[in-house]
Amino acid sequence: MNNTLDEFIKKNTALIDQQLDELLSKAQIANTLQESMIYSVKAGGKRIRPLLVLATLEDLGVNSTDGLAVACSIELIHTYSLIHDDLPSMDDDDYRRGKLTNHKVYGEAAAVLAGDALQALAFENLTNLSSTSAESSLKLINKLSKASGANGMVGGQILDIEGESKSLSLDDLEIVHLNKTGALLSYCVEAGAILAGLSENLTKQLEKYASNIGLAFQIKDDILDITSTTEQLGKTVGSDATSHKSTYPSLLGVDGAIERLSTHHRLAIEALQPFNKEPILLKLFADYIVNRTT
Amino acid sequence: MNNTLDEFIKKNTALIDQQLDELLSKAQIANTLQESMIYSVKAGGKRIRPLLVLATLEDLGVNSTDGLAVACSIELIHTYSLIHDDLPSMDDDDYRRGKLTNHKVYGEAAAVLAGDALQALAFENLTNLSSTSAESSLKLINKLSKASGANGMVGGQILDIEGESKSLSLDDLEIVHLNKTGALLSYCVEAGAILAGLSENLTKQLEKYASNIGLAFQIKDDILDITSTTEQLGKTVGSDATSHKSTYPSLLGVDGAIERLSTHHRLAIEALQPFNKEPILLKLFADYIVNRTT
Repeated sequence: MNNTLDEFIKKNTALIDQQLDELLSKAQIANTLQESMIYSVKAGGKRIRPLLVLATLEDLGVNSTDGLAVACSIELIHTYSLIHDDLPSMDDDDYRRGKLTNHKVYGEAAAVLAGDALQALAFENLTNLSSTSAESSLKLINKLSKASGANGMVGGQILDIEGESKSLSLDDLEIVHLNKTGALLSYCVEAGAILAGLSENLTKQLEKYASNIGLAFQIKDDILDITSTTEQLGKTVGSDATSHKSTYPSLLGVDGAIERLSTHHRLAIEALQPFNKEPILLKLFADYIVNRTT
Repeated sequence: MNNTLDEFIKKNTALIDQQLDELLSKAQIANTLQESMIYSVKAGGKRIRPLLVLATLEDLGVNSTDGLAVACSIELIHTYSLIHDDLPSMDDDDYRRGKLTNHKVYGEAAAVLAGDALQALAFENLTNLSSTSAESSLKLINKLSKASGANGMVGGQILDIEGESKSLSLDDLEIVHLNKTGALLSYCVEAGAILAGLSENLTKQLEKYASNIGLAFQIKDDILDITSTTEQLGKTVGSDATSHKSTYPSLLGVDGAIERLSTHHRLAIEALQPFNKEPILLKLFADYIVNRTT
């Protein structure tokens, strides 16, 4: 990994983890629930979404004290979605990032409720920003609720589940991923843009960047599921093929998927060109997503 | 039921249902998800929470166009909690209000996701108030996230589940209900107070009213579970006794529970005394909760 990005990630991951600890320390009335929430938030995620918020702010030259809070709200939403996705009635996963999934440790009821409480905490946290106007805070909440709700992440998840039992076209597959993972990833840069007070035009460019790295991220996931090992990824590989799930490699072949990955990477980089000062961290992020091995 | 309350309920239930229809018509990208959300929101609830918001506003003499929107957000949160509570991993209920529960119709995955999307929609809706300041909107979101999250409704639900396998003291039982149902009921009157710009002192009185009718509501539920029939209630009765769950009647006897119900009713009415003009609808609501037969 590039040194600049590596340093940025190390420094900010520590800050994100510390802020998440503080947020979760307040969920006090029921021990099991709090433990279950903390378990999944601290289960070793790569923090890509919160890092993307902070990278956007740094690239835009904005020093926002609220960036970290917004970044953490997104990670709480992402974590709740993983807990629910892993449930027996959905993906039925026993392991995530090499650790037992939430419901395997705390039981299904606590897992459902931990997810529910993490969602509420994400929104609560956005009402406590210290140096952001009430109008901008409301805008951040509005866009997060849309990105994570029925017309975003949750909608994409149900389309994904329904897609498992049929052959999807490439367009259908793209709609799944633009919603399931793309909407929240786009929100990361959009949130940075709101905090930075960025113009509408440049915000649109950032969204273009985000939806392309979102799709690139998914294609890379699909490719790694075929070319990597369970040990390397910390989760069961080859499950897409076993379940005959439509993926980019199944629709395009591995070479076709790699080519498409490269196209989305190029489109993401091109979307950054209208900025006077090159958003260097966002560029490095796009490179990292394409080149990562886990 | 008293005529004044009856008319108020009829008129406003129609308005609430219409507004909920409009809100849900926007959850469009995934049909199954939208159907599942609509199914439970329209499953014939009594709309007690949204009616309580509107009753508070009417009693305070405030004509707020946003009252209906706030009322509906609360109903969306309440509905999501019922869908998740009914899941096999929680209360495992097949029927609710005489209709099949959400997961019995749409499957568990869609039920979990419908709940998740309803929660997001509730918060989204509070960012779209037309005549409320951004500051007050944020306050409404802040209090709703707290009332429904780990230190409110969701926390109460896990305490309730954990309490099923042990004998609870009366204090423990009260903590369960103050959180599981009381927090959201209190939020109903608190939201009305925020929209009305009510003084802190009178808001505190309304909260006292609300936590007492919340407990009264629960005690009445426990009593009906013993004295009513499955047909009358539209849900299986006697389940508390079968599962040896701690309830007010199991701890106090039916007569003791009835006495405690009466105490909370009295405390609720007393909390309304400091108002210059008697909050007549809130008083009638308290009477209704105690006297209802379903």
